Amino acid sequence: MGLKSESPQVLYLDDLCVGQRFSSDSHRMDENRMKEFAAEFDPQPFHLDEASARDTIFRGLAASGWYTAAAAMRLVVTGELRIAGGLVGLGGEITWPKATRPGDTLRAESEIVEIVPSRSKPNQGIVTVRMTTLNQNREEVQVFIAKLLVFRRPA
Amino acid sequence: MGLKSESPQVLYLDDLCVGQRFSSDSHRMDENRMKEFAAEFDPQPFHLDEASARDTIFRGLAASGWYTAAAAMRLVVTGELRIAGGLVGLGGEITWPKATRPGDTLRAESEIVEIVPSRSKPNQGIVTVRMTTLNQNREEVQVFIAKLLVFRRPA
Repeated sequence: MGLKSESPQVLYLDDLCVGQRFSSDSHRMDENRMKEFAAEFDPQPFHLDEASARDTIFRGLAASGWYTAAAAMRLVVTGELRIAGGLVGLGGEITWPKATRPGDTLRAESEIVEIVPSRSKPNQGIVTVRMTTLNQNREEVQVFIAKLLVFRRPA
Repeated sequence: MGLKSESPQVLYLDDLCVGQRFSSDSHRMDENRMKEFAAEFDPQPFHLDEASARDTIFRGLAASGWYTAAAAMRLVVTGELRIAGGLVGLGGEITWPKATRPGDTLRAESEIVEIVPSRSKPNQGIVTVRMTTLNQNREEVQVFIAKLLVFRRPA
């Protein structure tokens, strides 16, 4: 739980094990920034303004899933999961179980769920991390099961 | 191939079938916007500036995967795949097979790969769409296998 607090160093493949957990700061989702992001990247009525959002399936303004994803990424990158060489995601499975609303305060919790050392490249491996983004009521607004490229500590 | 050109109407579940394809406009990835996005959401050396990116695994500046995802979303939302009620993604599987670089020109191609009508809610279904984002060399920079919520045409 939070390697960073005990040790400010970055983490190599050798330092990780299944079940390790890492937390993050929290971030309040600002309504104006949410709308600006939507106008630039996801211009749909339910992301753009409260009035047009009311009669949609979201029944009110909701963040673009990609805004939630971007905000969650910042929480993870600035949080406790500091991988040597950076957080390099190859991809993963993303879901948005619940809408993110203006004023929600998000936090990211990451847990190592699988570690697969590379057979062909002995200096690296693929680490699967379940990154859960929670709102202020501890409801999951995003789950990203990410595959990260992680290096071994140089000899 | 491109229903929108023949018909400007929005699409209901009834209008979709496996194999249908939809294209988009193209978008040039601006280096400054790429860096700004990274500074806000994914502040890692390989996304922030050319000099610090050089000695990383990316060997030069690369877009945050979330910036590629956001730019791709805009291409899809403003493209031919116009779903009635909007593009409502429940989630999906995302991969970034190749880095997006400053100056790349991206385009999104979407293909319906599965349609599963809901058993409990007869007015809706889940449509799986393979959204491929290509650069100017037709290389895949992102593949998002998205699950969309799509409604039947009201009786």
